[in-house]
Amino acid sequence: MNKLNRLNFSGGPGALPESVLLQAREALLEVPEVGLSVLGISHRSDWFAAVISELEANVRKLLGVSQDYHVLLLQGGATQQFSMLPMTLLRGETHPADYLHTGYWSGKAIPEARREGPIRVLWSGEADGFRRLPGDDELPFSPDAPYMHYVSNETVEGVQFHRQLGRDDVPRICDMSSDFLSRPCAAEQFAMIYAHAQKNIGPAGVTVVLMRDGLLRDAPTGLPGFLDYRRHIETHSNYNTPPVFAIYVVLLVTRWLMNEIGGLVPMDAINRKKAGLLYRVMDASEGFYRGRAETKDRSLMNVVFNLPSPEIEKRFLAEALAAGFSGLAGHRAIGGVRASIYNALTLSAVEEFAGFMENFQRGQKG
Amino acid sequence: MNKLNRLNFSGGPGALPESVLLQAREALLEVPEVGLSVLGISHRSDWFAAVISELEANVRKLLGVSQDYHVLLLQGGATQQFSMLPMTLLRGETHPADYLHTGYWSGKAIPEARREGPIRVLWSGEADGFRRLPGDDELPFSPDAPYMHYVSNETVEGVQFHRQLGRDDVPRICDMSSDFLSRPCAAEQFAMIYAHAQKNIGPAGVTVVLMRDGLLRDAPTGLPGFLDYRRHIETHSNYNTPPVFAIYVVLLVTRWLMNEIGGLVPMDAINRKKAGLLYRVMDASEGFYRGRAETKDRSLMNVVFNLPSPEIEKRFLAEALAAGFSGLAGHRAIGGVRASIYNALTLSAVEEFAGFMENFQRGQKG
Repeated sequence: MNKLNRLNFSGGPGALPESVLLQAREALLEVPEVGLSVLGISHRSDWFAAVISELEANVRKLLGVSQDYHVLLLQGGATQQFSMLPMTLLRGETHPADYLHTGYWSGKAIPEARREGPIRVLWSGEADGFRRLPGDDELPFSPDAPYMHYVSNETVEGVQFHRQLGRDDVPRICDMSSDFLSRPCAAEQFAMIYAHAQKNIGPAGVTVVLMRDGLLRDAPTGLPGFLDYRRHIETHSNYNTPPVFAIYVVLLVTRWLMNEIGGLVPMDAINRKKAGLLYRVMDASEGFYRGRAETKDRSLMNVVFNLPSPEIEKRFLAEALAAGFSGLAGHRAIGGVRASIYNALTLSAVEEFAGFMENFQRGQKG
Repeated sequence: MNKLNRLNFSGGPGALPESVLLQAREALLEVPEVGLSVLGISHRSDWFAAVISELEANVRKLLGVSQDYHVLLLQGGATQQFSMLPMTLLRGETHPADYLHTGYWSGKAIPEARREGPIRVLWSGEADGFRRLPGDDELPFSPDAPYMHYVSNETVEGVQFHRQLGRDDVPRICDMSSDFLSRPCAAEQFAMIYAHAQKNIGPAGVTVVLMRDGLLRDAPTGLPGFLDYRRHIETHSNYNTPPVFAIYVVLLVTRWLMNEIGGLVPMDAINRKKAGLLYRVMDASEGFYRGRAETKDRSLMNVVFNLPSPEIEKRFLAEALAAGFSGLAGHRAIGGVRASIYNALTLSAVEEFAGFMENFQRGQKG
C-alpha cells in the first residue's frame, strides 16, 4: 500500500484495508468466481445473491444477532435514513419520539424527523458546543415514545457514547454511521441500527440497516417503494438495482474483520490502542494539544483537537501533509484538527502520527 | 480485456469500456492526481469538486445543452426518480400529468406517480404485449398537463422511440436510463431527462438528472432534503456524501465518449451498425429468430427475440454461454433471449455474436 493510503486520516470516505483494496482492484477486471468485471455483473445473478446472503450472515455473526434481525443494504446514506425512519415509525403518531442532539449529525436528523411527526429533543449539547455527552440522570426517556433515536459517535465533534442508551420498552434506534463494526455493540438491544459505509465498512454509496423483525408491524403502507423497508426486506435488498460494487466491497470488509482481525472484540482492542496513543500525546502536551471532548466522552474514532492558535493549526496541517498524513483538517463546521482513525487505519500509522505530534510540539518550543 | 467482459451482453449492469475499467482499476489503489485510493478520498476535496465540475461540463457538451441545464448525480436509480419527479411537479396539481405505458419500466413509473397526484395514461401497449409503440396520431397530448413522461427505450421488451414526443408547451420528461448518451437526443427540447448509470454510462449506484433551469419555479418546499432537487442543485450534487467511485467512473465514460469515440454522432453510428447486424440475422432467419418488437420500433440497445421453442431457446443460451457470450437470458418478466448491446459492447463482439446466431441456426437444421 502506498504511504498516502496508509496515512489517510480522512473523516470519510475513509481508508479501507489494503487487502480489501487489492481484492476490489482485481474484481474491477474479473471477479474470481465469475470471470466478469464486478461492474458488469447482473444484480439478478446467482453470484450477487450469494454476495448478499454472505454479507447478511457476516453482519449477523459479527454483531451476534439472530435471524430475527433483517440486514438491508440501501442507498442514500444516513441522510435517507433520517427521513425514512420517521416516515415509517412517526407519521400519524401522537406521542413524540425522543431525539438526542449531541452534535452536528444528530442535529441533521432532527429537522428531517420533524417534517414527519412529533418529536421531543430530550437533551441538547448545543449550548456547550457539543463538548460532552449527557449522563443517564439527564435523560428522562419517555415510556410512550414510538422510538428513541441517537447517534453513537459524532464525527465532527469527536464525542462518542460508551454505553447504550434508552429504555428496553421503547424501540432503541441508533445511527452508528461512524462506529459501526468498530466494537461490539449489544446489537440485540436495538430495534434498529443504521450506518452508511464510508467510515469503517466500505465506500460511499451504500448504507447498512439492521432491523429487528416485527418493528414494521404497525408501519403505514403507501410509501414509495424505494422508501418502504418492507420492499427491501422482501427482496433481500434487491428491490431495484442496488449498488453492486459498494456492496461487494462491504462484503470484503466483513471478511477482513472476521478472518484477518478476528471479530469485533480484537477490532475494539486495536481501536482503543490507537485512540489511547493520540489522547496520551494530547494529555502529556501541557495544553499544546487541546482535546475538544470531555475525557469521558472521547471518541475512539475521531480525535478532535485544537492547537494554541489558528496559525499554528495551519502550520501543523501543512507539515503533516508534507509528511504524508492527509485528511486531518477539522470538519468545515468547526475547523481545528481531526484525526479519524477508523478500523482500516493501522496501529503503526497511528504510532507514526503520534510521533509526528510530539515532534511538532517540540519544534514549536525550540 | 478478457473474453467474458468483451462478450458481456447483460441487460444491466452492463459492460463498460476496457479503458475505463483499466483506469478505474488503477484508481482503486491510487488516483493519479491525488495519490490516494478513490475509495478513500473525501467528497469535500478539491479533486472531487473538479470531478463533478468536469462531469457536468462533459454531459452538457455531449448533449449540446447550455448552462441553463443543471446536471445532477443522484442515488436511488430511476426508481427514485419515479417518485421524486411527481413529488416535485405533481403534488397539489388538478390537471393530470400525461404518462405513456410502453413496457415494463414505464409501467413501474405509473403507480409511483399515482401516489403523488393525478395522472392520465395516454396510451398503453399492454394489451399488445408491448410489441409496438404508438404513432403521433395515437397520442393526444394534453396542453394542460403539468408535464408529460415517457421512457425512450424499454429494455425488457426491446422497443425504442426514434423521435421525441410531446408538445413544446408542456414540460417533456424522459427516462432515458437505457439509451442515455447512446445517440444525440435533442436534449434542449426536454425539461428533464434522467438515467441511471448502469446501462451505458457507469456502474450501478448513480443516476444522472439533466434539468432545465426554472422547472422547479413552482415546486413545493418541505420535501426531505435528499428528495429535494433544489438541495442537489445548490450543492453541485454534494448535499450528502455522494457515491464518489460511481461518479468517477461516469466521468471516465464521458471522457471515453468524447476522446476515444468522438461524441454521440459516431457513437450512434456504431450502435446502429451493431443493432443492424443482429436484426439482419434475425430477418434473414426465415422466422427462426422471431424479433419481439415491430420493425419500426426496434431498439438499438436491446435486441429481444424468441426461438422456435423454449427448449431451443434453452439450448441457444447454454451454447452461447459455453462460447463466452453471457447475460443473454431475457428479462425474468418475459423470458426469451435479449442481447443488450450498450455503448461499451464493441462492434466486433456483436459480429461474433451474429456469427454465432447464424451457426446455431444452421446447426439446428442439420
